[in-house]
Amino acid sequence: MAESRSTAGDVERSVVLPAGYGKAIRLQAGRRLRLVNLHGVQAVDLWAFVDGDPGEYLSMEHFRSVHSVVWATTATPLVSNARRAIVTIVEDTSSGRHDTLLCPCNEPLYRQLGAPAGHRSCADNLHEGLADLGLAVPFTPASLNLFMCVEVRADGSIDRRLPSSSPGSHLVLQAEVDVVLAFSCCPQDITPINGPERTPRDCRIDILAPPPEDAR
Amino acid sequence: MAESRSTAGDVERSVVLPAGYGKAIRLQAGRRLRLVNLHGVQAVDLWAFVDGDPGEYLSMEHFRSVHSVVWATTATPLVSNARRAIVTIVEDTSSGRHDTLLCPCNEPLYRQLGAPAGHRSCADNLHEGLADLGLAVPFTPASLNLFMCVEVRADGSIDRRLPSSSPGSHLVLQAEVDVVLAFSCCPQDITPINGPERTPRDCRIDILAPPPEDAR
Repeated sequence: MAESRSTAGDVERSVVLPAGYGKAIRLQAGRRLRLVNLHGVQAVDLWAFVDGDPGEYLSMEHFRSVHSVVWATTATPLVSNARRAIVTIVEDTSSGRHDTLLCPCNEPLYRQLGAPAGHRSCADNLHEGLADLGLAVPFTPASLNLFMCVEVRADGSIDRRLPSSSPGSHLVLQAEVDVVLAFSCCPQDITPINGPERTPRDCRIDILAPPPEDAR
Repeated sequence: MAESRSTAGDVERSVVLPAGYGKAIRLQAGRRLRLVNLHGVQAVDLWAFVDGDPGEYLSMEHFRSVHSVVWATTATPLVSNARRAIVTIVEDTSSGRHDTLLCPCNEPLYRQLGAPAGHRSCADNLHEGLADLGLAVPFTPASLNLFMCVEVRADGSIDRRLPSSSPGSHLVLQAEVDVVLAFSCCPQDITPINGPERTPRDCRIDILAPPPEDAR
């Protein structure tokens, strides 16, 4: 599959974000990573916490209050519950709108959908990913639902569109402060939120090398 | 001012929700209270926690996921992060749409607006109200913003309408499980979210008597 070219710089290391699983990554202020949607239609839930102070975190309700818009783009820095930008989408070759409205998938949802006990979920992936870094948070913030296309009709109803990004499309995220980013490659295989095949797919995260000193 | 009549029953006791302040109230399953918007244009932020298990709470992102709509009405039971109804709006004589999108007002917002330090906020009112009951939660969930009229345009942008309810309009809330309800009579006096006069006003909460046994 063809991947869109990125202007963001060299890759320091890459990690696979396996279908249905999550991973948390520390990223220092000014550093960037590229999230590659290898198959194009995979939703990836994102959370961000200030490293060392997880009580300050990416907040969807503060995002909407600050930017007065229901989806995230390169024009809308990702703000915390302290109303400051902690992460920015600096490059985006996907369909370009990322949902702030819906909750991460979770155990009660899968129970209601009739899935067998133990079905993986984005909410659990958040906490698993943080635990791998020795971190814990006492609740599950609302997630930013990357690559998920959700619109609001004039009557206030929510329209879940099928995902529309191309295979290999990517986002580049830049840390504006030292952050812990948690990603979940959504395990939803009952509804078509990850595409009509209802099959979660791997994504890839490229940690980008810092820019040369003279380019900063 | 004229208050709309309620079919909800006799008043057991009433408490004033003073302009700019909050209050938390325990309500047993099946019991009801009436929130009266004495001046019509006052926003009131609401939170709900399962009594004895505050890790289960009214969640705006789960509400939108369950009901596929961005505002709350009598048709949309207020669901928790476990995707079950914990409170219902059983009667509503206000404009009838209540915002799920925007964050409660908070200290960083007032700092950005240039308010003097110590300006009251809905977020602080939540925690103060819970503390009066000997309770604490380690974070601030998104609030349900009662009487706040917020719409989403086709381009995804958020349209904060001026409040439009009539003086004396009310909601009746019914607990579906034993809950702690936290109310904040919004202290916003810089933007017109509480009306063009930018003056927070008292509201009133009537705790309703339980229905007679034979009517249950």
